[in-house]
Amino acid sequence: MLRQEGLFLLSIFLYLYFLTIFNLSDLKLVILGNGSAVPTRYANPTSQMLYYRGRQFMIDCGEGTQMQMIKYGIKSRRLDDIFISHLHGDHFFGLFGMLSTFHLFGRDKDLNLYSPQALKPLIESVFETAATRLNFKLNFFPLEDYKSTPLIETKSFIINCFDLDHSVPAWGFVFREKKGDLRIDKEFVKNRGLTVDQINSIKAGNDFIDEEGKAYKSKDITLNPRPPASYAFCSDTAYNESIAESIYKVNLLYHEASFDESMLELAGSKKHSTATQAAKIAKIAKVDKLLLGHFSARFKNYDLLLNEARQVFPNSHVSVEGDPYIIK
Amino acid sequence: MLRQEGLFLLSIFLYLYFLTIFNLSDLKLVILGNGSAVPTRYANPTSQMLYYRGRQFMIDCGEGTQMQMIKYGIKSRRLDDIFISHLHGDHFFGLFGMLSTFHLFGRDKDLNLYSPQALKPLIESVFETAATRLNFKLNFFPLEDYKSTPLIETKSFIINCFDLDHSVPAWGFVFREKKGDLRIDKEFVKNRGLTVDQINSIKAGNDFIDEEGKAYKSKDITLNPRPPASYAFCSDTAYNESIAESIYKVNLLYHEASFDESMLELAGSKKHSTATQAAKIAKIAKVDKLLLGHFSARFKNYDLLLNEARQVFPNSHVSVEGDPYIIK
Repeated sequence: MLRQEGLFLLSIFLYLYFLTIFNLSDLKLVILGNGSAVPTRYANPTSQMLYYRGRQFMIDCGEGTQMQMIKYGIKSRRLDDIFISHLHGDHFFGLFGMLSTFHLFGRDKDLNLYSPQALKPLIESVFETAATRLNFKLNFFPLEDYKSTPLIETKSFIINCFDLDHSVPAWGFVFREKKGDLRIDKEFVKNRGLTVDQINSIKAGNDFIDEEGKAYKSKDITLNPRPPASYAFCSDTAYNESIAESIYKVNLLYHEASFDESMLELAGSKKHSTATQAAKIAKIAKVDKLLLGHFSARFKNYDLLLNEARQVFPNSHVSVEGDPYIIK
Repeated sequence: MLRQEGLFLLSIFLYLYFLTIFNLSDLKLVILGNGSAVPTRYANPTSQMLYYRGRQFMIDCGEGTQMQMIKYGIKSRRLDDIFISHLHGDHFFGLFGMLSTFHLFGRDKDLNLYSPQALKPLIESVFETAATRLNFKLNFFPLEDYKSTPLIETKSFIINCFDLDHSVPAWGFVFREKKGDLRIDKEFVKNRGLTVDQINSIKAGNDFIDEEGKAYKSKDITLNPRPPASYAFCSDTAYNESIAESIYKVNLLYHEASFDESMLELAGSKKHSTATQAAKIAKIAKVDKLLLGHFSARFKNYDLLLNEARQVFPNSHVSVEGDPYIIK
């Protein structure tokens, strides 16, 4: 009896432990840098960390990303995949230092790098010059090869890249959780002592017949699956409506908003977007929520950008470095 | 009369202006990073800015140097010379971002880079990959070519490099102000209305004969020149007494002290120094003051290192990022 109670307590403990470690239920985003090419007191070069079921995904790695991770207490134990949107320095100059630090901290498991192909020889040159032989393997996945193939696909999620419209080849990224199983109605399960096989059968959508021969329709004893969470990253890019298709109806969209509407021409010539344009894309793509970022160094605050975006897409927000965004 | 007064006021104003701008009288050091390879909450990768008579000299440029400059309000208008001690990443990974920022801020004057020769092709690769064509010229000066030649020599100062003892080729740097002119005794000048020619003649050490034919010996109307200021940078290096000669009697020495004495063997194998070893070099070289730096990430404070150093060389200090060190 004591042994059974011990096992029960152990399983509760393990469940809570893994729930904590893996944040099982949530997709979470932390923005490490929401500035553009020139860092300021207020904004660092681009980098973000996405968390999902015990995995971490980094998007871009501007200079100082590892310092931002220290500042916000962000570890990298579960980071195995880094995505680099394009090869402007403010999106990858932090890689060299961060990879060095991983090396010095003894990382030995592979790290996957999804980036424009020209990054591979450059990283090799940098570490050769810096007399550093990383003690982990870098696996390179050239984004040029993933026109229609997912970058990563598992049973529970899929990550794709898509073309942005910038002065150099640039890619956006979209993370989509897959539709989950049906959920069993808690009231129905209560005190019935169902076996694991019975539960899985119900979750798979089968009807159920109890010991007394009573039949229950699947729809009467299940709830719809939890709505799948999704997130898209679009930076750097000019306004381009073709992007909307790739990011259609995501829960959260991070879209660059380098400039305000008075700088529309500048935005066009530099292949960046205004806040209004970011909001237009959010509206066309019918996303739930828009986060603005990649702010030009000329802005001391982002009120103007926010106001402009909200006139087009009310659920627009200024991204805040270090804040956790839970994506439901 | 009014015109004369105006000119007088203007010259006073200009004098004060240039005194402010150029810090005419001082050699000043600001340390931007005193950490070692892995940045921490407390210490950034190596970089320092030296100021002398309106010129700025940067030594090393670890990741995040440009952010440290923002943090401490440090401009780069008068920075034309950057010295890179060696090609471990924590001493140069910040160059790419900082040079990009100079470019984006419209710098068009040349920048001189004194570094190991392998940095030149790497910088060219980085900016080619990042699709950035800097709108200023980078002049490369390979340290390998400066065994006995000064890196920079002017009428008032000289900068030399010398070999350190590290796991890759590494150089220290020493800045020495030249002996200045004699200073005219203020009491003597008072109310005498000397011409510029007369002042220069006295400063050059000549005797002086006044309008009434009275002769003054040079030694009676002059004071010794201000003692020339000097500074030396030694990081990264193992303990090596041959360094002492190059940095003999400098006013201020920054010497790496990566480890404490309990890690003596580790220091030797990694070709770094302990705090005690840094102090020994300071003592042998008879420097005035020692600043410890390049602290291993394992230290949360540097009391132990300071205590060890002071037992050998009492005028030892822990360097503090952002503090101005005036070198007399």
